Amino acid sequence: MTDRILGVLGGMGPLASAQFMARLTLLTPAVRDQEHIPAVLWSDPRVPDRSRGRPASGPDEVLPWLQRGLRGLKAAGCGAIAMPCNTAHGWYDDLTAEGLPILHIVDAAAAALRAVAPSGTVGIMGTAATLAMRLYQDRLDHQGWHCITPDAEEMARLVTPSIAAVKANRVVDAYAPLAEAARLLAARGAKAVVLGCTEIPLGIQAGPKLEFPVIDTIDSLALAAIAWARG
Amino acid sequence: MTDRILGVLGGMGPLASAQFMARLTLLTPAVRDQEHIPAVLWSDPRVPDRSRGRPASGPDEVLPWLQRGLRGLKAAGCGAIAMPCNTAHGWYDDLTAEGLPILHIVDAAAAALRAVAPSGTVGIMGTAATLAMRLYQDRLDHQGWHCITPDAEEMARLVTPSIAAVKANRVVDAYAPLAEAARLLAARGAKAVVLGCTEIPLGIQAGPKLEFPVIDTIDSLALAAIAWARG
Repeated sequence: MTDRILGVLGGMGPLASAQFMARLTLLTPAVRDQEHIPAVLWSDPRVPDRSRGRPASGPDEVLPWLQRGLRGLKAAGCGAIAMPCNTAHGWYDDLTAEGLPILHIVDAAAAALRAVAPSGTVGIMGTAATLAMRLYQDRLDHQGWHCITPDAEEMARLVTPSIAAVKANRVVDAYAPLAEAARLLAARGAKAVVLGCTEIPLGIQAGPKLEFPVIDTIDSLALAAIAWARG
Repeated sequence: MTDRILGVLGGMGPLASAQFMARLTLLTPAVRDQEHIPAVLWSDPRVPDRSRGRPASGPDEVLPWLQRGLRGLKAAGCGAIAMPCNTAHGWYDDLTAEGLPILHIVDAAAAALRAVAPSGTVGIMGTAATLAMRLYQDRLDHQGWHCITPDAEEMARLVTPSIAAVKANRVVDAYAPLAEAARLLAARGAKAVVLGCTEIPLGIQAGPKLEFPVIDTIDSLALAAIAWARG
């Protein structure tokens, strides 16, 4: 039993947050309720669309919503934060200013990647915003990987509509286009593909397993959270 | 978009809470994140075992843990509470004293039951504590149903170990014994079986569909929560 309470800043999207809570539970070695990890999930899907980037102010401003959630989790007694939304990590530095440790999803994914493709070319899938802000590329290239990403046509035709489909509860529809985008990266030399948007593993799990390793960033973040809670 | 924030007093068990969050999302008509329901999940699996009943005081006392969660959810701005744990409804009256409306899981299940078996004999599965406190029997018998439950031997051999298996992350192991217990109730005349412990639907979903209607109390409570949030 741990007395560390995990804060989950979620709702981005809500299904990915629910899946994070399920995986946090299923990946925890426990034989009864009381051995599982205490957690508070702040699931606020009203946070404005992260993929529009960082407007300075106005109704589309993301940061105040994230800060509100973080402060709520702090008030609830949480000792560290996990954000099961890759794009929200664009506000990571602003959020750490609130004083709570935040488990970085890219570091969590890198730990999983090391086990299946310790170096070389890897594919990164994510929202257009995550790819444009080079969330994965800068951190992974620095650690000895070479990151490749879908091109603009593949993003528009395959990846972006699939993420929207998961958010609209049409999870099964997302499988075929996401699998095609991942296979195109593998065909270009990726030894593994990072599913760097938490909606993507939900879509990829709705169909047959792919022929190459993929990194489920929900699972990676859940494992980092378990290590923190048990640490 | 709704500004009503749902409070989910959960962690009892944590996998059932995660499933509640997933079903809350999937049962909400929404085409983008911002149309989903804001919610805060207080998932504290440290709450002492509800099935031991109501000790007056000491470390096994359940009520202070539930009150702590409820107050945390109130502080977070939640306007109503859903508890995805049937047995915890044994403390329902104590908890309503905190002043927040709590959606009652038996009323939610009754609404679902009405659609498939509007009267007559129905089976109730749950923890021994839920059955002993007559959580379902008193409320449903009063509304024109006749409730039957597994006998003591079936509880000890089939139901109780299956609930424990789900809490220990052995979900697949729970299917066969739970299906057997449900079929015994159907053989005794139940037109439908209420899965009146939130671990039970998780186990029942791990195998083939049963031949008679079952009421998934996680889904019933999620539908009640959606009606509240949209109301």
